[in-house]
Amino acid sequence: MTNSDKESNLKIFSLSSNQELAKQIANVVGVELGKCTVQQFSDGELSINIEESVRGANVYIIQGTSYPVNDHLLELLIMIDALKRASAKTINVVMPYFGYARQDRIAKPREPITAKLVADLLEKAGTTRVLTLDLHTVQLQGFFDIPVDNLFTMPLFGPHFQKEHVTGEDIVIVSPKNSGIIRARVLAKYLDASLAIIDQWVDEEGINQGYVIGEVTGKTCILVDDIINTGTTIAVAATILNANGAKEIYGCASHGIFCGDAATTLNKAPFKEIVVTDSVALRDDVTINHLNVITCSDLMGDAIRRIHENVAMSPLFGYHNK
Amino acid sequence: MTNSDKESNLKIFSLSSNQELAKQIANVVGVELGKCTVQQFSDGELSINIEESVRGANVYIIQGTSYPVNDHLLELLIMIDALKRASAKTINVVMPYFGYARQDRIAKPREPITAKLVADLLEKAGTTRVLTLDLHTVQLQGFFDIPVDNLFTMPLFGPHFQKEHVTGEDIVIVSPKNSGIIRARVLAKYLDASLAIIDQWVDEEGINQGYVIGEVTGKTCILVDDIINTGTTIAVAATILNANGAKEIYGCASHGIFCGDAATTLNKAPFKEIVVTDSVALRDDVTINHLNVITCSDLMGDAIRRIHENVAMSPLFGYHNK
Amino acid sequence: MTNSDKESNLKIFSLSSNQELAKQIANVVGVELGKCTVQQFSDGELSINIEESVRGANVYIIQGTSYPVNDHLLELLIMIDALKRASAKTINVVMPYFGYARQDRIAKPREPITAKLVADLLEKAGTTRVLTLDLHTVQLQGFFDIPVDNLFTMPLFGPHFQKEHVTGEDIVIVSPKNSGIIRARVLAKYLDASLAIIDQWVDEEGINQGYVIGEVTGKTCILVDDIINTGTTIAVAATILNANGAKEIYGCASHGIFCGDAATTLNKAPFKEIVVTDSVALRDDVTINHLNVITCSDLMGDAIRRIHENVAMSPLFGYHNK
Amino acid sequence: MTNSDKESNLKIFSLSSNQELAKQIANVVGVELGKCTVQQFSDGELSINIEESVRGANVYIIQGTSYPVNDHLLELLIMIDALKRASAKTINVVMPYFGYARQDRIAKPREPITAKLVADLLEKAGTTRVLTLDLHTVQLQGFFDIPVDNLFTMPLFGPHFQKEHVTGEDIVIVSPKNSGIIRARVLAKYLDASLAIIDQWVDEEGINQGYVIGEVTGKTCILVDDIINTGTTIAVAATILNANGAKEIYGCASHGIFCGDAATTLNKAPFKEIVVTDSVALRDDVTINHLNVITCSDLMGDAIRRIHENVAMSPLFGYHNK
Amino acid sequence: MTNSDKESNLKIFSLSSNQELAKQIANVVGVELGKCTVQQFSDGELSINIEESVRGANVYIIQGTSYPVNDHLLELLIMIDALKRASAKTINVVMPYFGYARQDRIAKPREPITAKLVADLLEKAGTTRVLTLDLHTVQLQGFFDIPVDNLFTMPLFGPHFQKEHVTGEDIVIVSPKNSGIIRARVLAKYLDASLAIIDQWVDEEGINQGYVIGEVTGKTCILVDDIINTGTTIAVAATILNANGAKEIYGCASHGIFCGDAATTLNKAPFKEIVVTDSVALRDDVTINHLNVITCSDLMGDAIRRIHENVAMSPLFGYHNK
Amino acid sequence: MTNSDKESNLKIFSLSSNQELAKQIANVVGVELGKCTVQQFSDGELSINIEESVRGANVYIIQGTSYPVNDHLLELLIMIDALKRASAKTINVVMPYFGYARQDRIAKPREPITAKLVADLLEKAGTTRVLTLDLHTVQLQGFFDIPVDNLFTMPLFGPHFQKEHVTGEDIVIVSPKNSGIIRARVLAKYLDASLAIIDQWVDEEGINQGYVIGEVTGKTCILVDDIINTGTTIAVAATILNANGAKEIYGCASHGIFCGDAATTLNKAPFKEIVVTDSVALRDDVTINHLNVITCSDLMGDAIRRIHENVAMSPLFGYHNK
Repeated sequence: MTNSDKESNLKIFSLSSNQELAKQIANVVGVELGKCTVQQFSDGELSINIEESVRGANVYIIQGTSYPVNDHLLELLIMIDALKRASAKTINVVMPYFGYARQDRIAKPREPITAKLVADLLEKAGTTRVLTLDLHTVQLQGFFDIPVDNLFTMPLFGPHFQKEHVTGEDIVIVSPKNSGIIRARVLAKYLDASLAIIDQWVDEEGINQGYVIGEVTGKTCILVDDIINTGTTIAVAATILNANGAKEIYGCASHGIFCGDAATTLNKAPFKEIVVTDSVALRDDVTINHLNVITCSDLMGDAIRRIHENVAMSPLFGYHNK
Repeated sequence: MTNSDKESNLKIFSLSSNQELAKQIANVVGVELGKCTVQQFSDGELSINIEESVRGANVYIIQGTSYPVNDHLLELLIMIDALKRASAKTINVVMPYFGYARQDRIAKPREPITAKLVADLLEKAGTTRVLTLDLHTVQLQGFFDIPVDNLFTMPLFGPHFQKEHVTGEDIVIVSPKNSGIIRARVLAKYLDASLAIIDQWVDEEGINQGYVIGEVTGKTCILVDDIINTGTTIAVAATILNANGAKEIYGCASHGIFCGDAATTLNKAPFKEIVVTDSVALRDDVTINHLNVITCSDLMGDAIRRIHENVAMSPLFGYHNK
Repeated sequence: MTNSDKESNLKIFSLSSNQELAKQIANVVGVELGKCTVQQFSDGELSINIEESVRGANVYIIQGTSYPVNDHLLELLIMIDALKRASAKTINVVMPYFGYARQDRIAKPREPITAKLVADLLEKAGTTRVLTLDLHTVQLQGFFDIPVDNLFTMPLFGPHFQKEHVTGEDIVIVSPKNSGIIRARVLAKYLDASLAIIDQWVDEEGINQGYVIGEVTGKTCILVDDIINTGTTIAVAATILNANGAKEIYGCASHGIFCGDAATTLNKAPFKEIVVTDSVALRDDVTINHLNVITCSDLMGDAIRRIHENVAMSPLFGYHNK
Repeated sequence: MTNSDKESNLKIFSLSSNQELAKQIANVVGVELGKCTVQQFSDGELSINIEESVRGANVYIIQGTSYPVNDHLLELLIMIDALKRASAKTINVVMPYFGYARQDRIAKPREPITAKLVADLLEKAGTTRVLTLDLHTVQLQGFFDIPVDNLFTMPLFGPHFQKEHVTGEDIVIVSPKNSGIIRARVLAKYLDASLAIIDQWVDEEGINQGYVIGEVTGKTCILVDDIINTGTTIAVAATILNANGAKEIYGCASHGIFCGDAATTLNKAPFKEIVVTDSVALRDDVTINHLNVITCSDLMGDAIRRIHENVAMSPLFGYHNK
Repeated sequence: MTNSDKESNLKIFSLSSNQELAKQIANVVGVELGKCTVQQFSDGELSINIEESVRGANVYIIQGTSYPVNDHLLELLIMIDALKRASAKTINVVMPYFGYARQDRIAKPREPITAKLVADLLEKAGTTRVLTLDLHTVQLQGFFDIPVDNLFTMPLFGPHFQKEHVTGEDIVIVSPKNSGIIRARVLAKYLDASLAIIDQWVDEEGINQGYVIGEVTGKTCILVDDIINTGTTIAVAATILNANGAKEIYGCASHGIFCGDAATTLNKAPFKEIVVTDSVALRDDVTINHLNVITCSDLMGDAIRRIHENVAMSPLFGYHNK
Repeated sequence: MTNSDKESNLKIFSLSSNQELAKQIANVVGVELGKCTVQQFSDGELSINIEESVRGANVYIIQGTSYPVNDHLLELLIMIDALKRASAKTINVVMPYFGYARQDRIAKPREPITAKLVADLLEKAGTTRVLTLDLHTVQLQGFFDIPVDNLFTMPLFGPHFQKEHVTGEDIVIVSPKNSGIIRARVLAKYLDASLAIIDQWVDEEGINQGYVIGEVTGKTCILVDDIINTGTTIAVAATILNANGAKEIYGCASHGIFCGDAATTLNKAPFKEIVVTDSVALRDDVTINHLNVITCSDLMGDAIRRIHENVAMSPLFGYHNK
């Protein structure tokens, strides 16, 4: 098979959650986005129209399941069904953001494990492979029986802070909640920094409380999380760090959802910079001060090319060795 | 097992699509609705909390997938997952309205069969049985590998018109589109009426066109459909019947969605009465003139009781013999 | 991969239901039929012998499940099992006629949905794709989780009647039963003709009754159905049309089964011509007057070639635009 | 649950392969056969009508898949589908004779394993348990993922020969082909007899050849097989035994199919008696000399009762200890 | 169903990993252990003999998959297969220790997710429910599609330390590695204690290094982990705490594997007490100083009774509220 | 695709059961063994590290499941899981020896069918094809739903004895137990020899008893079995043959396990030669007199090449015609 054959055989479609990112990814891969339209009727039902043949093609669908998560998820499932029936050879789901990822365990009696449900629905619909970016917990890969390549964002954030000279002994990487320590540690290793944790909880009056475990006084702190949602967790953490004498405070997260009062909350907190990737499309009506968005399109596009050409993905994780 | 054992073993939960109907159904069955709450976070993700034990119970979830269909469907799937993991004995999904039912075939190249996808998702999540009301096409039962009991609404509409003395030789049952003839014929048989069809299409300028096949001049016409959505199809049909000299025009449909400009469209059309069931909750902001809503709660409650007690469902279809 | 590689990789086998058609289809595709023999022992068990290697091949099995339907279906399933175990790469089932298609819903209590059962059996045995011709109801595609390409026969019948100059305002397309109106409408659109329906039923004494809905007096009528089985439905319809003053009556159906007393019944009815495709092999002992058989082999062969070469199938449905 | 509850909950249906045996089994169990009718249309399609409610019932379907095997198998599969959709609690398939059992391995390149296919089809259709009688090879149980209880016929044949005083040192149990030695050995142990084998093959001119391995001169020989089909194997074996000086020759087999020229073949061979069970209905037009049919209805009825009452099945195999 | 019926319907079997615990659990439930024997042949193959009927029974198999994990896992899978084929009604797998739980994600390229594989194997073999104790990560529940009840050990350790008066402000709960912080926090909340973490790694010369995050000088420290395997992690942590001025050091872990040089390693470390449950059978040749084993049999027996009687499990997690 | 492409696409990995054989097979195929390491921790858990990319590769894993069978089986399953998640295109399991094959039926109440369980586990883990050598019973192929190629060893043993001039009328092929007659007959046909059987059993005092069925006095006997395990069966058979006046006695078996006291047992028995293949690695501490090991690597390597190149496998069975 020649190279041109191979490429004509690769098709990338974007659904509606993040078309700007999809275009950039397609650009990195070196193909045009496939033509398809999504329509929503007045009764809420979605209708998908794939406007070019996909027979025998290796199809990549780019669709994060960010807000509105249920519409975006159904859109994705319907697209997969259409591709399956239209005889696509492989159906590769590219999810820069994986909604419902935090519902990954039974924390209280009779809770669902919605993240597993989503995995099951994707497989049942006909997905043959999944490509994700910084899943909330890495165990989610095990919710699937098909190959899942989960890219990390630390190869993006590490060089970013290095370029900004935020590195070395003066730096502490801080997890804003005790469950995020592993993610923080990877960045700490990259930047030769030490570690700290904010132990947070909500008290009986609904107020966020917390304290620092570790040394932060006089240090430059980088708060690391996977998702900034309403922004409360990371903002409270920044305030606590500030109260504990931190010199400068950076926030960094893979996915910037910024829903609810996120802008207000974050703009009140003492951040020097907040860095997120473009995995979730920024809403026009949200303005976050000091926000720096770095693109994940090179990383994801490179991954798609490697999958398509059967080349090892491991170099993309090569930040381990810096 | 005594009767009281049996009842304590039957639990009915209502999700958010039509709580009024759910209450009435529970009332017919003779049990209280189970306690559960559904919460939607600011990022759109749903969280379900089942507030009583369901271990070993035969659970019935009442949830039509009307607008907003994707939220209602996910809510249902998440509830099923929670019940499965919480060790419910059987999970019976009661859908007074089955969204996406009209996407039941590939009409154009590369279309999905979304109705089949929905069936697959429900089974994958853990549904053990489905109870529906007047599915758009009866073939949908074959989309499932689990038992599906599909109740008809003609046992509701037939007696309704009989009570109103709309019956006999003077009456024509009219299908507003050519695919609805089977449904029309069942009512025609019940009311000893004749049949007609409106052959409708949209012309190149986007205007609905159509003509009558059959005799309607001077007759009382009952237009029969399964779903009134935007109301255009049935309103155009009424206008055509009027232009062809029909005496009086009734509209009747199992499911009244009334979305978009339905109120405006229907209120302009020459209906003496429009009859629907309460399978879909009426929105407060929609006012349809001459609307008559008859309840399907007796029928559905009776069906649940029969399923629970392993009694034949066939009498509920007994209208065949009137 | 060169073209010759591709072709050597494509194998078509014919089972016993319609070997003449299979030969023509293979001819259209441009390959020889693969060698296999089917033997039936005196105890009724079937034995299949595939006489050439199929390792890694894309195999197409041509087998309609016409009379004797159970033998033909088992033959097909056993062949699929043999191919799967012999390491065929893909197993494409080509069914010019799909038996049991009319058992597609639960019409009376405790009925099976045999068409769904057949779909499940085909998938379970190892089918990877299905190619059919004018399924009884299009919803049958949704009975499968694998790709199903359902070809229509109207692109065959439309040009046929056009060539015979049976077209235009003088023509009425008539559905011999009320469930066939959609199929009739497609031909009506093609021939710029109007529509009518025969509403038929069997009375208490077992006699077929019916009346015409629509205008047929003085018109040339084309009765359209998917299957002519015993011939009663279409023959009664023709007689009713005749009694209502139709000028000339044509019958047309995708699949000519002609079982039981079909010949007698049809030969008594006032047909000018009956047109069917060769989807079902004509039995030698059946003689239908005015019968015209047109071949579906070009259509089906073209479809196989498109599937094999991953070319869009949509042009085969292009009759929509004439 | 009281006994009467339990019994009303147990339903036995007979399909068309062996209604006489089904009646006797129902009699042993102590229930009436359920009402259902099977109809075959002129195009060969089967239609099944279950005439009583099966909701929540433990249903046992009695249907061997003897000649015509494909019709009987489809009848069974369609019945299973109907029961599944009609909400039967368990579907227990009782197959006194399991057709296609001899196609249990790939003996030549590209052969199917039809016995496994049949097992797969039964499971896919919805079977929850299988009860069989003397499967051709015991490994067939492993073709299923559901419980299979395979009853042996030696507890029937052992006492039979004991009653006829065919027992002891003078007796040789002979397998008519080398693959049947295990079955022969069980009877040998029961009757304290020795063993011999006929090594048979078909020579190049199509004539059955063979010789005795073991001592038979002057002995009373009992030929043991699982199936008598065309009768050739056992008849040739009897002739060889006769030529080797056997005193008296008995034939015994679990399943008497007697197809093709079986009567002629067997009636020419030197048998003193041929014993089979009634697992397969004897055809009226077949007369086998010296035939003795013993019933398996007590054994099978007893097994059904044990399954229904959750009582160990092992006593039914108790002949091991005589 | 009376209580005695119910109990006769419940059977508990112990396989070979921890027979002492199994006996105690059966005692708590109030039944005798079922009779079964496991034999290992000289070629390593296992043979299982269930010595009493299990037809229709709700069976609980008690088998942790501790060392030798592969033998114990196969033993469990074979037992499940035997029970499934012997018609057990439900097969409940009780795993006090879940081997391979730490292989729950892809940490390096091309790693398996063995914990998911084990879950898949258990389901495929026929498990209908799983009961575990303190899974390594709670996400493992989502690896299953069947109900999994994962009990926690903190309701055992919390009261234990309270009884020993190890509670209050003077106490620090320490996670010996950064991934265990969540588990530590639950105990901290129970004992009103603060939190600390040991950040550990292995340096290039293979020596364990680490430092404390948080305040421990002069405090009583409780190191909390889920598994003590070779003991290195917790022993290194204890040594570091000691070097940082901790007053007294307790170690506590749900599962005491104590493999390799665990005894030597732990006995050298500055522990005042090491507490584990009896989830894993202690080997006779291992002597750990200051070891305190508390039983999980009450907790697990209570859980089995609740499952069997369909009573909510939530009170077993009630320690949340102390 | 060019030949070099094809080969670079084929990867063979050896797990730990028989690395010598794996090397030879790879040599026959003409490729290097892929790099992977298997590590067993002190708690018995296995860890596998695949050290080269397998994306899109057709992977063949060589691993017999000989002693220790459970470790070898888990090693295989874990490797399959790793390959599936690492995006191997096909996963072909090559098992020169298939452990647990003798547990292929339910011989006593409540026995498992462990051979079927193993087949299910292999499929569930992700195997796409299996290649075996002389399965204990050929019906095992039907335990799989994926293609299984089962090679025979008679094409190895036949020529071996021919070369040694052990052929012709003077020779008797003897099955050492009555179930092995089919295997014996194939060799008999190849060598133009006659057949005999040893009917063996264990008496109440645990002593092996038996007698010869057929003629062996003064003959050269070749005992044929599939597996030599403890050696008792074949050694007892040799002793019986000797006592019955056999001239010379050869033993031959596909798989030489030689476990327990096999060496002692076999060395005491009157064998002139024992021939096995190298399907199972010989243990260093076992010395069998007169042992002759012939390699199956040519046969298996040839089979792999044929599978990879989609060439018919049937010539490898061509010994049928000698």
